[in-house]
Amino acid sequence: MDSGLLLSPFTIAYQTYGELNADRTNAVLICHALTGDQHVANIHPVTGKAGWWQTMVGPGRPIDTERYFVICSNVVGGCMGSTGPASTNPATGKPYGLDMPVVTIRDMVRAQALLIDHLGIDQLFCVAGGSMGGMQVLQWAASFPERVFAAMPIATSARHSSQNIAFHEVGRQAIMADPNWRGGRYLEEGVRPEKGLAVARMAAHITYMSDDSLHRKFGRKLQNRAAPTFSFEADFQIESYLRHQGSTFVERFDANSYLYVTRAMDYFDLAADYDGVLARAFKGASTRFCVASFTSDWLFPTVDSRAIVHALNAGGASVSFVEIATDKGHDAFLLDVPDLISTTGGFLDAAASARGLPQRKTPS
Amino acid sequence: MDSGLLLSPFTIAYQTYGELNADRTNAVLICHALTGDQHVANIHPVTGKAGWWQTMVGPGRPIDTERYFVICSNVVGGCMGSTGPASTNPATGKPYGLDMPVVTIRDMVRAQALLIDHLGIDQLFCVAGGSMGGMQVLQWAASFPERVFAAMPIATSARHSSQNIAFHEVGRQAIMADPNWRGGRYLEEGVRPEKGLAVARMAAHITYMSDDSLHRKFGRKLQNRAAPTFSFEADFQIESYLRHQGSTFVERFDANSYLYVTRAMDYFDLAADYDGVLARAFKGASTRFCVASFTSDWLFPTVDSRAIVHALNAGGASVSFVEIATDKGHDAFLLDVPDLISTTGGFLDAAASARGLPQRKTPS
Repeated sequence: MDSGLLLSPFTIAYQTYGELNADRTNAVLICHALTGDQHVANIHPVTGKAGWWQTMVGPGRPIDTERYFVICSNVVGGCMGSTGPASTNPATGKPYGLDMPVVTIRDMVRAQALLIDHLGIDQLFCVAGGSMGGMQVLQWAASFPERVFAAMPIATSARHSSQNIAFHEVGRQAIMADPNWRGGRYLEEGVRPEKGLAVARMAAHITYMSDDSLHRKFGRKLQNRAAPTFSFEADFQIESYLRHQGSTFVERFDANSYLYVTRAMDYFDLAADYDGVLARAFKGASTRFCVASFTSDWLFPTVDSRAIVHALNAGGASVSFVEIATDKGHDAFLLDVPDLISTTGGFLDAAASARGLPQRKTPS
Repeated sequence: MDSGLLLSPFTIAYQTYGELNADRTNAVLICHALTGDQHVANIHPVTGKAGWWQTMVGPGRPIDTERYFVICSNVVGGCMGSTGPASTNPATGKPYGLDMPVVTIRDMVRAQALLIDHLGIDQLFCVAGGSMGGMQVLQWAASFPERVFAAMPIATSARHSSQNIAFHEVGRQAIMADPNWRGGRYLEEGVRPEKGLAVARMAAHITYMSDDSLHRKFGRKLQNRAAPTFSFEADFQIESYLRHQGSTFVERFDANSYLYVTRAMDYFDLAADYDGVLARAFKGASTRFCVASFTSDWLFPTVDSRAIVHALNAGGASVSFVEIATDKGHDAFLLDVPDLISTTGGFLDAAASARGLPQRKTPS
């Protein structure tokens, strides 16, 4: 691992959809975001909800499971089956807790590369993902350029900003302030820092939406009442919504994993591994890139995507870039945004043609 | 109070600077922001730091204490001497806690008006303030137009946005999640929800700065180390800075007061008292207004100030408006921003002339 520590043995939990072709050239790796997991296009086993990227992945979707062999794995440090802080530390027989080595984006990608080896795939047709998933896409292209035919980093950045580190730190402090966190050893003590984790999720959730989308969706509307109660009840719909986001999140996510995945993003600064020059990360790359950002995303604003595009151009890579107009904020990459769907479909169709894969029967 | 409850008796703690003239026409009321207090231009008795608006208020400053009689009071619901949740409830002999009635911006202004009565002042020469202070300025102009000769609402809004309610709710939930909060009765139990309050402050503090100012001030710089530690220590300067902001804040601020003042801002929607038409709040007003916003303020963006200006114009009021270019974010109203200083000086000089007050000897 980047920390110099060894994590061994470790488990990678993953899902696949579709069939690998005889040439093993049609595999698409999806990289999930901070609190995502491998259940990209199937019913989630814990929440019972649809897959987190069902707008993008499935039969007839841009990442078409009838044409591509789609793989999505839970990141190392996560809590849906891959080794993470809730996993048993073989040295102690107890959950790792904070004895789990700190994980970086590059560590996540190293683990995914071992999975791709295991599946017998030399080169991925495409690696795609948004937010933290986009960071993994960039790391894949930099670390294993010959193994990535096409790459689609969405709503992401080549380095985590000061403001974003700040929001993550607030979330971590909220978790660590919860007395049920117990220095990270809560699982052994049969408790969970649910209140702290819920506060962390609430703070983060605000950053995933835009001011405009909050105004449009909630404004100052009251929740099931005609007048304010002059109390600290959830008078406003936005309060009720945030509390709900917090309380449902804690049912599916591990607090220590939240510490680890936020930390991985904080540490991400791809250029730092290339003498501070991002273009060197992509020098001579033959990968085809499609970079996408959203006008109302203030967590990963377009300026971050432009920096990636400039570096790719400087590195001589093939790159197309689209800034998509939407008021849905950072979360737009997860939502049914027609311009994102059509951009992805068009990019993959062209890449498939270049790769000699069969064309879509009814192109969009 | 707006809640229909009675708060009686109550105390208003205040500071004054300069001398009231014989005509009682040179009084300036300063309204403080969320966590401010009456110590606008003197050493703070708790922190030992300079007054919070020393750039603006003092001898030779735009709000010149050699020309004006400057008044600043701690808001009702606060924790620096005015009646708030930490005050003794006369009905029980114990601290109010959440038995304190919820306070609105209008309640704060009602209490200030009683103070102005007590000081024997019919009309204030100017009411000025930023952020929550600006809300009080707007409420003063709407509730007591004949008592406000000039008004300067800075970096504020006539109604609190959904996003801002959301950030406040995160802060409140962080406080209430702290087991030392004890349902608001922590003072009787000899504890304080310091961890929760610190998290609330950290989250809020991010919103007071701009992405650009964070990037310029901290970027991804490490704190007293050459390389990341691969841990959850405060590796980054921004983390260390935020933790410091949290820990110093809890030394000077009461957690329940934080609940009350954030709630007052949430409930603020001036137009709601005027059939939803903000212009009606200012109809026929003879008050002279100067509205100021900052380009990098994303908490109270310029669009909010423009809405105030449009309403003032529609109401037939005299209004000047300036959007000041700065990367310092919402906090700019507290900082030494030359354009704000000169705008305030110019506005007050012109207003003083119109009011028949003596002119500055060496105008800026």
